[in-house]
Amino acid sequence: MKGYIQIYTGNGKGKTTAAIGLAIRAAGHNKNCFIGQFMKGREYGELKTLQKIPQIEIEQFGITKCITKEEVSEEYKEKSKKALLKCESKMLSGKYEIIVLDEINVSVWFGLINEKDVLDLIAKKPENVELILTGRYAPESIIEKADLVTEMKIIKHYYDKGVNARNGIEK
Amino acid sequence: MKGYIQIYTGNGKGKTTAAIGLAIRAAGHNKNCFIGQFMKGREYGELKTLQKIPQIEIEQFGITKCITKEEVSEEYKEKSKKALLKCESKMLSGKYEIIVLDEINVSVWFGLINEKDVLDLIAKKPENVELILTGRYAPESIIEKADLVTEMKIIKHYYDKGVNARNGIEK
Repeated sequence: MKGYIQIYTGNGKGKTTAAIGLAIRAAGHNKNCFIGQFMKGREYGELKTLQKIPQIEIEQFGITKCITKEEVSEEYKEKSKKALLKCESKMLSGKYEIIVLDEINVSVWFGLINEKDVLDLIAKKPENVELILTGRYAPESIIEKADLVTEMKIIKHYYDKGVNARNGIEK
Repeated sequence: MKGYIQIYTGNGKGKTTAAIGLAIRAAGHNKNCFIGQFMKGREYGELKTLQKIPQIEIEQFGITKCITKEEVSEEYKEKSKKALLKCESKMLSGKYEIIVLDEINVSVWFGLINEKDVLDLIAKKPENVELILTGRYAPESIIEKADLVTEMKIIKHYYDKGVNARNGIEK
C-alpha cells in the first residue's frame, strides 16, 4: 500500500495524540510503527502504554520541551541530529510501515534540527511508508512536501482560566 | 483532579485518533477510560488494539457511518438513544475518569441523537470525569458547555488526488 506524508500542526491540542491514535489504529491492522519523540524526555503517559503494544516501538530523544531558543546549544543540536538519523535508519530498515516524528516541526522552529535535514529524510521515504510529522510551526518547505496537512486550531481553551498541564491528560 | 469537557471537531483528520491517543496517555497514568463509538460498526483498527489495554474499554454502537440524513429511522434513533444512556451510566458509575463519545457531534447533526440529550448528559458530568466529544459539526450549544474546543482544519488533503480511505490509516 502506498504511504503518504502527513503533518499535524497548529497551536491547538491533539497533534501528538492524533499521531498516537493513528499508530494504535495501524497496529490493529498489524502494521509496525516507530514513534520518535523529539523534545520529550519526561515520562509521558503514552510511553508506558505504547510499550505494551508489540507492533509499536517508541523512543524519546531526551531533550526536554521547555527550552527557549536561547538555550539551544551545539550539544543539543548534535543530539537532535543523531536522533533524526536514527529515525531515518528506522524508516529505511523495511521493518516499519508507519514512522512518526513527534514534535519535529517545533524542533526545526527552535533551531534544534535543520529544515534541510528533515527535507532530506522526506526525500528518502520508501514508497510503502506512511510518515507523520507533528508539532506547531510546520515550515512551508515541509508542508509543500506533505500529502495531508491538518491544522489543530484552538477555538476555546481552559488554559485561559489558568489550568496547568495535567498528568494523564496533557502529558 | 478536576475533569473538563473537550471537543474535537472540524473537517480535518485526527479527531477520533486524538481522543484515542488521549485515552492511551491517560491509561499510562492508570486512569480508566470508556470509549463509546457512535456511527461505527465496522472493525476499525483501534478496536483491536485498545481491547488489549486493561484500563481502556471500548464499545461500538453498531450504526454504520455512511448513512444519509434521509436514512435515519426511528429504529436508529432509538438505538442511538440507548447507546447514549449506556455512556451516561458508564460516566456515572464512578469507574472511569475519561469518557469519550466518539462521533457524537456528527450523530447530533444527522438527527440520530437529540442535542438536548447530550446537554443533559453533560449537565450530569461528575467533577472528576474528563469528557471528550468528537465529530464534525459540533453544535453551538455543546461548544458553549465545553472547556476546550479544538478544530481540526484541512490545510491540504490527498483525497483531492483521489485516494480512498485505507485500512490501518483512516480506519
